Amino acid sequence: MGNIKLDLSRVYGVVDKSKVEALKGEAEAAIKTLHAGNGAGNDFLGWLNLPSSITDAQFAEIEAAAKDMRSRVDYVVVAGIGGSYLGARAVIEGLSDTFDYLRKDRKNPIIIYAGHNIGEDYLAELLDLLKDKKFGVVVISKSGTTTETAIAFRLLKELVEKTAGKEEAKHRIIAVTDKAKGALKTLATNEGYKTFVIPDNVGGRFSVLTPVGLVPIAIAGYDIRALVKGAADMEKETALDVPFEKNLSMQYAATRNALYRNGKAIEILVNYQPKLHYFTEWWKQLYGESEGKDGKGIFPAGVDFSTDLHSMGQWIQEGERIISETVVSVENPAKKQVIPSDADNLDALNFLAGKRVDQVNKMAELGTLIAHTDGGVPNIHVSVPQLDEYNLGQLIYFFEKACGISGYMLGVNPFNQPGVEAYKKNMFALLEKPGYEEATKAIKERLK
Amino acid sequence: MGNIKLDLSRVYGVVDKSKVEALKGEAEAAIKTLHAGNGAGNDFLGWLNLPSSITDAQFAEIEAAAKDMRSRVDYVVVAGIGGSYLGARAVIEGLSDTFDYLRKDRKNPIIIYAGHNIGEDYLAELLDLLKDKKFGVVVISKSGTTTETAIAFRLLKELVEKTAGKEEAKHRIIAVTDKAKGALKTLATNEGYKTFVIPDNVGGRFSVLTPVGLVPIAIAGYDIRALVKGAADMEKETALDVPFEKNLSMQYAATRNALYRNGKAIEILVNYQPKLHYFTEWWKQLYGESEGKDGKGIFPAGVDFSTDLHSMGQWIQEGERIISETVVSVENPAKKQVIPSDADNLDALNFLAGKRVDQVNKMAELGTLIAHTDGGVPNIHVSVPQLDEYNLGQLIYFFEKACGISGYMLGVNPFNQPGVEAYKKNMFALLEKPGYEEATKAIKERLK
Repeated sequence: MGNIKLDLSRVYGVVDKSKVEALKGEAEAAIKTLHAGNGAGNDFLGWLNLPSSITDAQFAEIEAAAKDMRSRVDYVVVAGIGGSYLGARAVIEGLSDTFDYLRKDRKNPIIIYAGHNIGEDYLAELLDLLKDKKFGVVVISKSGTTTETAIAFRLLKELVEKTAGKEEAKHRIIAVTDKAKGALKTLATNEGYKTFVIPDNVGGRFSVLTPVGLVPIAIAGYDIRALVKGAADMEKETALDVPFEKNLSMQYAATRNALYRNGKAIEILVNYQPKLHYFTEWWKQLYGESEGKDGKGIFPAGVDFSTDLHSMGQWIQEGERIISETVVSVENPAKKQVIPSDADNLDALNFLAGKRVDQVNKMAELGTLIAHTDGGVPNIHVSVPQLDEYNLGQLIYFFEKACGISGYMLGVNPFNQPGVEAYKKNMFALLEKPGYEEATKAIKERLK
Repeated sequence: MGNIKLDLSRVYGVVDKSKVEALKGEAEAAIKTLHAGNGAGNDFLGWLNLPSSITDAQFAEIEAAAKDMRSRVDYVVVAGIGGSYLGARAVIEGLSDTFDYLRKDRKNPIIIYAGHNIGEDYLAELLDLLKDKKFGVVVISKSGTTTETAIAFRLLKELVEKTAGKEEAKHRIIAVTDKAKGALKTLATNEGYKTFVIPDNVGGRFSVLTPVGLVPIAIAGYDIRALVKGAADMEKETALDVPFEKNLSMQYAATRNALYRNGKAIEILVNYQPKLHYFTEWWKQLYGESEGKDGKGIFPAGVDFSTDLHSMGQWIQEGERIISETVVSVENPAKKQVIPSDADNLDALNFLAGKRVDQVNKMAELGTLIAHTDGGVPNIHVSVPQLDEYNLGQLIYFFEKACGISGYMLGVNPFNQPGVEAYKKNMFALLEKPGYEEATKAIKERLK
C-alpha cells in the first residue's frame, strides 16, 4: 500500500465537492487514454511503467559507476538543464543534510549544478573554484547541443583534462544521452566515457527515474532502489484498474481541474520543510510545461512556509481570489531538536519549552490551512510519513501520473513543449548560427 | 544622474501606449499623496527619505561593529524572517562569488540564514554544524517575539555561549531591534549586546537600507556607503518634482497598473544573472505584501533565465495570457569567460568560439524578449550597467518608490500587512499560548 495521504476536505469549503465529483467521468476517460496510449503525445509514455520495469542489472550498473566516481573525486558537477537536472536536484536536496557542503567530515561528494544557465560570472567562478579540486562531471543531454549545457561542458571537459590528465578525465566524465545518435553520444564513444541511455519515449520532465536522475542521485550517496520502489508501489496504487475513489492521482487531477474551472488560475505548491524547495521547482516544470499551452493551464508557483508566509503570505491571504494551494507535508522530521526553557523568558517562548520544533511547525501548518480556507484559498493536502528515498519515489510517481491525467482532462498534449523552441530560434538567429541565415536576416530586419 | 534604464517599448505591442499614458494623472496623484504623507499607512513612510538621511556617524558605527564581528568569527548567522532577512540576502548574494563558501582562501565570513523557518531538521543540522565553529549571530526582530526568529535565537544564543563562553558571546551577538521596547531590546540591554535600531516608521519590506540590511551586508564584506549612495541618487531621480516623463518609478508604477487593468494578473520578475535570485525574492515580498489585499493585487512570481526557460518557459510562451514580465538586466558581467574552440566541434558550438559567454546570454535575453512579445507577454525592461553596491542601491530605491506609487494607484494601503496575522493567531491558539485561551477553545471546537 502507498504511503501518501490525500486530504481534500479543505477544498470543499471553497469549491463544492459536487464540482469535483462531477469530473470523475473525465478523469476516468483520461486515465484510459493514457493507458491505451491513444492520446496526444503517446510516443512519450515510457514513464508510465518505468518504475516497475527497471532491472537489477540496470541498478547495478548505475551503482558501480557511482561508486567508481565517488572513489575518484570530491566534487561532482551535474551539467544539464530543465528536466536534465531538476529531478536529481529535488531528490538530492530532499535527502541531504542542509549544511553538508560545509562539513569537513562529509561522506558524499559536493554536488554542483551547471549547464543550466549562461551566466558568465557563474561559469568563471565555477572554473576558478574547480581549478585545484578533484572533480568529475555528469553531463546530461539527449542531443549534446543544448546551448547552456554544451557551453558549460566544453569548459568543464577542458578543465578536467587539464587538471587530472586526459586518461583520468575519461573516468571522471559520465554521459547520459541518446542511445545511438547525437553529438554527446558520438563524443562519449570517441572518448570512451561511461554512458547511460535516456530512453526515447520519456520526456525530460518525466525522466527523474531514468539514468538522468538516478546517476546523479546514486553519486550523491542515496538509495536509488528505494526511490524506484516507492515509485513502483505508487504505480500500482494509481493503476488503470484502481477506481477513482481509491486512485489518488485521479483525485488530485480532478480536483485541480475543478479548481481551475472555478477561477483558480494559480496553484502554489507549499512545503513546511525547506529541503523540499527543489521538489517544488521540479513540480513547477512538470505541471507548467505539461499544461501551459493553447492559451490555457494553471500557473504553477512555489512557496516555502513558514518562511514565505512573511513575504507571499499577505497576497495569499487577502489578494485576488484566483489561487489554490497544494501542501506537501512531511509527518515526521529526521532529526530531533527540542525547544529549551529559559530562566528569563523575555521572548515569552517558555510555553513551548520541551516541545519539539516540529510540533510548532505542524501548528503553523494547521493554522495556515485554516486561515487560508477562511480566506477563500482551497487547500489540497498531500502527506508522507517521512522524507526518504521511498517516499520521494511515491511523491514523484503520484504527481507524474496525476499530471498525465490532468493534462488530458484539460484537453492539451501534456507531453510536448513546442513553446520552448521560440526563444531558441530567435537566439540562434541573433547569434548567426550556421543554418539560420534566413532567420538572421528576418530578425535583424525586425530590430532595425 | 541615475544608472537605471527603463525600456517600455515591448509593452506597447500588447497593451497600447495610450492605456499607459492614460494613467499619468493617477501616478501624479499617487506620488503627491506619498510625499504629502496624507495617504493610508502614512506612519510608515520613513523609507522615503531614508537614503539621503543616513549620517556618516551611522555608517561608521555599523562598519565598526562589522569589523569587530569579522575579526572574531568564521560564520555569521543572520536570524530574521521576511523583511528582516530578504533585503540583506538579496544584496549579499547579488555581490558574492557564487561559490565563495567553498573556497579556502575566502576573506569574508560565511553567512547563513536562520530564524526564517520552523524546520526541525534545519535547526538541528545548523546547530550540529556550528558546534565546533567560531560563529556569531545578528538577530533581527522589532519585537523579539516573532516565533520563527525567537526559537532559532534561543538555540543559537545557548550554543554560542556554550562554545565561546558567556563573555565572548556578548561580542558575538548583535541585535537589530526596537529603539526602546520589546523582548529583544530588553535582552540586549541586559546582556550588553551591541544594538542597532529599526526605525518605527519603516516597515520590514522597506527596511534594507536601515541597520536591518546594512549590518549583515557590512559584515559580509560589502560597501554600505556605495549601496546607500546608489539609493540616494535614485531618491533624487524619482523625487516629487521629477515629471512623469523622466520619473522611472512613476512610469513603472503606471505601466504595471495598466497591465493589471488589462488582464495581466501575474507579473514575473526575470533575471539572466543567477546572483539576482534573492533580489527577486525581495521584490516578491515588496510587491506581494504591499498590494495583495482587499481581494486585489498582481501576483508576483519569479524566474531565473535562461535556467527556467526550460521549466516555466513553455507556460510563459503559450499558457493563459494573464502574465507580464519585468526583466532586471545587468549590462556587463564582472568576470570574463570566453567560449573555447574545439577541434572536433561535435557540439557544433564553434560558431560561438572566441565569444564571451555573456554575449550568448544577451542574445538569449533579446531572443526571449521578442518571443514573449510575439506570444502576447508584455515586457518591462530595467537595466543597470553592472552588479555592484551602487547599482543594487539604485534598483532597491527604484522598486520601493514605484511600489508606494503603484499601491496608491491600486487603491490599497501599501504599508500594512493585516493578512499576515491570520495564520499566527491560529497557530498561537493551537499551541495554547497564554492569552489565547478563548481562541484555543474556539479553534478546538472547529476542529472537532
